[in-house]
This record gives sequence, C-alpha cells and structure tokens, in this order.
Amino acid sequence: MLKKILKFGGTSVGSIERIQHVAKIIKKEFESGNKIIVVVSAMSGKTNELISLSKEISENFDRRELDVLLSSGEQVACALLAGALIEINIKAKSWMNWQAPILTDGDNNNARIINVSTGQINKFLKEGVAIIPGFQGISKNGDITTIGRGGSDASAVALAKIFNTDTCEIYTDVDGVYSSDPNKIPVAKKIAKISYDEMLELSSLGAKVMQSSAVQTAMMYNIPLEVKSTFTNRVGTKIFDQQNIDYSKSVTGVAYSKDDAKITLVGVQDKPGVAANIFEPLNKAQINVDMVIQNISSNAKKTDISFTIKRDDLEKTIKILDTNKEINYQNLLHNDKVSKVSIVGAGMVSTPGVTYRMFRGLAEEKINILAISTSEIKLSVIIDEDNTLKAVKKLHTIFELD
Amino acid sequence: MLKKILKFGGTSVGSIERIQHVAKIIKKEFESGNKIIVVVSAMSGKTNELISLSKEISENFDRRELDVLLSSGEQVACALLAGALIEINIKAKSWMNWQAPILTDGDNNNARIINVSTGQINKFLKEGVAIIPGFQGISKNGDITTIGRGGSDASAVALAKIFNTDTCEIYTDVDGVYSSDPNKIPVAKKIAKISYDEMLELSSLGAKVMQSSAVQTAMMYNIPLEVKSTFTNRVGTKIFDQQNIDYSKSVTGVAYSKDDAKITLVGVQDKPGVAANIFEPLNKAQINVDMVIQNISSNAKKTDISFTIKRDDLEKTIKILDTNKEINYQNLLHNDKVSKVSIVGAGMVSTPGVTYRMFRGLAEEKINILAISTSEIKLSVIIDEDNTLKAVKKLHTIFELD
Repeated sequence: MLKKILKFGGTSVGSIERIQHVAKIIKKEFESGNKIIVVVSAMSGKTNELISLSKEISENFDRRELDVLLSSGEQVACALLAGALIEINIKAKSWMNWQAPILTDGDNNNARIINVSTGQINKFLKEGVAIIPGFQGISKNGDITTIGRGGSDASAVALAKIFNTDTCEIYTDVDGVYSSDPNKIPVAKKIAKISYDEMLELSSLGAKVMQSSAVQTAMMYNIPLEVKSTFTNRVGTKIFDQQNIDYSKSVTGVAYSKDDAKITLVGVQDKPGVAANIFEPLNKAQINVDMVIQNISSNAKKTDISFTIKRDDLEKTIKILDTNKEINYQNLLHNDKVSKVSIVGAGMVSTPGVTYRMFRGLAEEKINILAISTSEIKLSVIIDEDNTLKAVKKLHTIFELD
Repeated sequence: MLKKILKFGGTSVGSIERIQHVAKIIKKEFESGNKIIVVVSAMSGKTNELISLSKEISENFDRRELDVLLSSGEQVACALLAGALIEINIKAKSWMNWQAPILTDGDNNNARIINVSTGQINKFLKEGVAIIPGFQGISKNGDITTIGRGGSDASAVALAKIFNTDTCEIYTDVDGVYSSDPNKIPVAKKIAKISYDEMLELSSLGAKVMQSSAVQTAMMYNIPLEVKSTFTNRVGTKIFDQQNIDYSKSVTGVAYSKDDAKITLVGVQDKPGVAANIFEPLNKAQINVDMVIQNISSNAKKTDISFTIKRDDLEKTIKILDTNKEINYQNLLHNDKVSKVSIVGAGMVSTPGVTYRMFRGLAEEKINILAISTSEIKLSVIIDEDNTLKAVKKLHTIFELD
C-alpha cells in the first residue's frame, strides 16, 4: 500500500469526458489499496479565460481580487472530479484552499505553500479520495492566494512533502520527458529516468513538461517524481536523485528555445566596472540576461561585449543602453533571429569529447555558432534561428538519442 | 448617510461592460456618503452552465460537491466587481462565504442564512465597499452550502436584517413591479408602492421580479425593499408594510400563469374521508395541488371533485389516481390547456363589487370560467389557455390599471 499524490493538469480535466476518464484512473489506484490525494488544475483554457475577463476591466487588475477570481477555476475542477468519483462509487471529497487549509507565504499571485493541516485529510484517506485544488492557498490574513502560472505542479510537490507521500505522479498530456520535442523531432525518445538537475536544465530550456520551480522543490526535499500521460497506459519518466541513475549515455536530451535575442556592444572601454554599468540598469528593469561573452580585445583599451536576453525584452534593453550615459560604446548590434540549442546530460562531465563532438556536428551542417555557454550538465549554443531544427536533429543523432 | 444593501442579479453583471456599469452605480451611492454592502449573483447563464456540467456527470450529482461547484459562479462575479470598483478608484473588497463567514443552517442545495460576522465588514464600510456573494454560505461543519435557485434575493434580505441596513435595493433587468407583464400587456403600469402580501401573491402567480421566499423574509422582519432597474435611472417599486400604502385602487395588478392543468374526478363517492384518500397520495408524491372545487352532487351518493396542479405533474397525477384503489370514481377528465388569471390587491377586501366586476368582464369577452379561488387579497380563475391575454387585458382595463 502506497500513499500517493496524483496531479492532473488542465488538459487532463479539459472536458467532462476527460474528467470521467481521470476518475477511472483514480478508481484503479484507490482500489489497488493505495491512499490517494489528488491535486487538480483548472479545466484547460479556464485560467486564461478568467485572466482575459480581468484584463477587460484593467491591465492592473487588483492582485487580491485576481486571486479570488483565478482560484475559482480549480474549485470547479475539484467539485466535478469529486462528483465523477462518487458517481462511480468511490468515496471522494474536495477540500478547498480554506478548508484544508493550505497556508501560504508571500504575495498575492506569487505565493508559496508553507503548510497544510494534514489530520483531517489523512483520516479521510482511509475511506476515500481527497481532492485538493492546485495553484492556490490562503495567506495568514485569510486572503485567497495563488502561486503563479503552472503552479499546480508546485502544489503537488509541496503536498507530497507535507503529507510525506511515497510518490508524486504528474499526469499530463504527454507521456513523459523526451530526448527532444517529439512533435518536431520524430525520432525523439522517451527518457525512462532523469535526474532533477537534468530535468531542470531541460525545463528552463524550453521542454515544457513540468514547471521548473516544482522540480527545484522536489530536488530540495528529494521527492521522487513521475511524469506520465493521462491518455495512455505507457510507463512515464521517473525524475529523481542523480545517484539512482545509470549513465550509459553522456547526453540525455537536446532542448531548444526560440525566444532569444542577442546584443553586441562594440568598442566598450576595457576597464573595471564596465560590465556592472551595463548589467545593473538591466537588472533593475527586471530584464533577465542569459549568456554573456566578453571578447578578447583587439585594441588595448576597447573590448566587445555580447549577451542574450528574451526577445520580448529587446526594445526595452536597447532603450536602456541608449539612454544610460554610464555605458560607453561605439556601436550596438542586435539580432533577434537567434535560437538557443542545448545538450543536457548528467553524464557529460565524465565523458570526454562531448563538446568537441557537438561543435564538429554543427560545423558539418555548416551552422555558425554565435555564442557558447557551458555548465556541468549542459552545453548551450546560440545559432541562427533558421538552423534550429537542423541543429537539434544533428545533435540528436550524434549523441545516439534517435 | 444611509447603510444600504445593493443587490445585483445575474443579468446586471452578465458581461464586463455591465459589471463596469454596476461599478458606476455603486460609486455614485458610495460617494453620496452611504455605507454600501453589495450582494452579487453569478453572471447570467453561469449557474445553468455549471448545472449542465454536473448533469453530464450525474443526474444525482453529489449535493455537497454541487454546492462547491455552483458557489464558484458568485465568486467570479464578486472578484470582477471588486476589481472594477478599484479600477475607478473606489476602495472595495470581496468577502467569500467562508471569509465573512456567512453561516447557514439546513441541507446542501437548500440552506438558509442564520448569521454573518458583522464586525470586520462593518469596520471596512467606513472606508470602502464590501462585496458579498449571494446564494451561498457555509454550514456549521465548514462545508460550502447554497440556498436554492434565485437565492441571491434571499441573501440580500438576510444580510439587510443581520447588518441592520436602512434599505435593501434589488437591482434587476426590469425597472420595478408592473400591474401586469409589460412585455405582453403594453398598457401595464409600474406600481410605485406595493405591500409584501400583494408582492407575494404576484410572485407566486408568475410575476418573476423577486423570489417569493425573499419577500416572505422581508415581510417577517419588516425590511423595506426597493426593486429597480440596473439599466435605467427610473424610480423603482417600493415594497413594504401594508399600513404605509395608499389604497386608492382596489386592484394592484393582474397576474397569470400558463403552467397549470385541471383534473376532474366524476362520480366520486360522497362520504367522509374521500378527499383525504385522493390528496394524501398526491401529497406523498410531492405534487402540489392548487385549487380544489367540490361540486354540489346531482346524485345523493356521488359527487364531482376538480382540482388544479402544475402541468408537469399531470401524467404522474393520473397514474397515482389510476393505480390507487382507495380512490373510487366513475370517470377522470383532464385538461392541460388551462391558465390561471388573478387579480391582486390589498384594497380588494374593502372594496365591494370587485368579484362581480371581474366575472362580468370575463363574460363580456365570452370567456368561460372553469374554477374560482379566492383569498383576502387575491381572486383567481382558471380559464382556457387561449383566452389568457384577452382576459388579462380586459381585467387590466376594468380595474383602471392601464
């Protein structure tokens, strides 16, 4: 007998038929003798619909009331799922954010679950299935709070920790984590086991299977995760501690993102404090700088600095660089038609030649590398956007992921 | 400075534009120096949409979870309205059922508000507008409860009592109570003042302006009501104690309903207990018998009994009468093409000749009366459905309501 968190995302409960299907999955788990806590997202499209309504009223809709508004989505999904379970003779009960209660810390729209009263729910698990809304809680003042977009994953992980469950299963519309995007790279393969670190690198690089902060929390408390499909019976992907993983392959996956832009400042003065002068105002404006490359200067007193940012921030960044007189440069070049392609693998560090093989492969495809960044388990390059898929396919083949 | 309940129905908050319009009405009231508590229904269509979803899962959807589901509708409307007020610089805050808290008694789907903690909200009224969801509360066990369809009116009246407000204003999509249905009888006039009793008779007879049980509660605690339009600035209808009303007219309004059916049992034994034998099984089956007429028997030992019921109950009623052997009759006649037309007026009791004038008027239009029923402030007749509008128009003219 296991104690499990089963988390179902928006597409998994996107219609009454799907809710009834989810109820059958839960019934099977419950009738196998497991204790089941279910975490539910709002029906797909619902949260966006509510956000649109709020934006019709104001682009700066009051944050407290926004959380009152948005939390209704999961409430609806919880009630429908509980009703669907009861209809197929499984005892079930929904606990709203204030009933559990799910206590949170932090601001409206961006709270963090800190505690849940477990007694009542633990007692109920002996006789039935507890249904809890994801993405929300209440503050110490008794206000409704939400925990950021995609926050139902974070709810599931937090509840897994607080209820001390054996597993935390994330049911979604894909059947696991793939070596690359299976919609674009048909030979991409499902990864059976992956470490938290690798998953984090893949998440933050554009593999949208799980929310990064949820993976981080799971890593911090060593909560084993399993990503699986609501719509097939196939085995999913297990995400856990690195030491449990067999690294026969140096590279686990190839990720890419297409929302980057590159800026080069030509002829910047080469003296201490220059980089700080550039990046401080960007940081203040909440512009996230990703890769930074400082070239060796050809001129003794001048250098070139390149960096990448989110494409959406390009205009704002140029404006800041233009108007800020502390930053002295001869020329500003920018390119918003770039993409970032990365190989990720916890085995990379122990396998020589990975870097070389990546660069050789890209060269064979005549793909020019505009910038490089490395970490222990990741190697990213910036290339022309048009070459993205060609690069991903090549790397997928080179590292035997096909 | 007055303390007011302003209640807005589903059509009043049926779109973002309408919510913004409602916010302007509230702003004006608040800026006039009044203390304002707003009670809000779900956006029009929303509750039906949620009920449809539940019915797709089960015709007997779990009652506790149904209340969790349905209560989300008012939550959305409250948050949007609070946000719309804040956007136009009026301080506003929503209180959910559990935050107020709104304590209820009774079953799920059919609860009754018994108390609300007034301290926190009363304090807030000095600085801003409190927004409270209609139609719901929580039980002593901490479950979400709802108080029956149309229950937002009942919420408004209960809150008017508990918060001891000066007025309870029901904003809706009509601009008051009319002497008859203004859509069908173009000469129908708005009634400026009406007593609780008259309003109750009109409500239960098909004038769907306010929910009957809310009017009953208002009558019980002598809470003055005002029905007015969200969409015009016209003066509405005031509903209060009979003694405050000037009865220059004997008849206040003409109501009608078209969902009746008439059954006649011919040749029933004329002995004690027969009526009980007929109506006891109907009562057990929750069939509501409206008018009952026992004719003078032509035969010493036999009589005829006629009664009216809701048209929807006709088949069920015939089946019960057919299968119940205690009920002995020679023949069963039924007519589901009948309507009930009523004149209502607290002044009727003191004005001689009202009954005579009604019957004479119907005779002039060659309308046959199938049954008659009277109370102190009401006189109803059953007639052929086809004659309904002709009868209503005639009575409207006769009693000088045009």
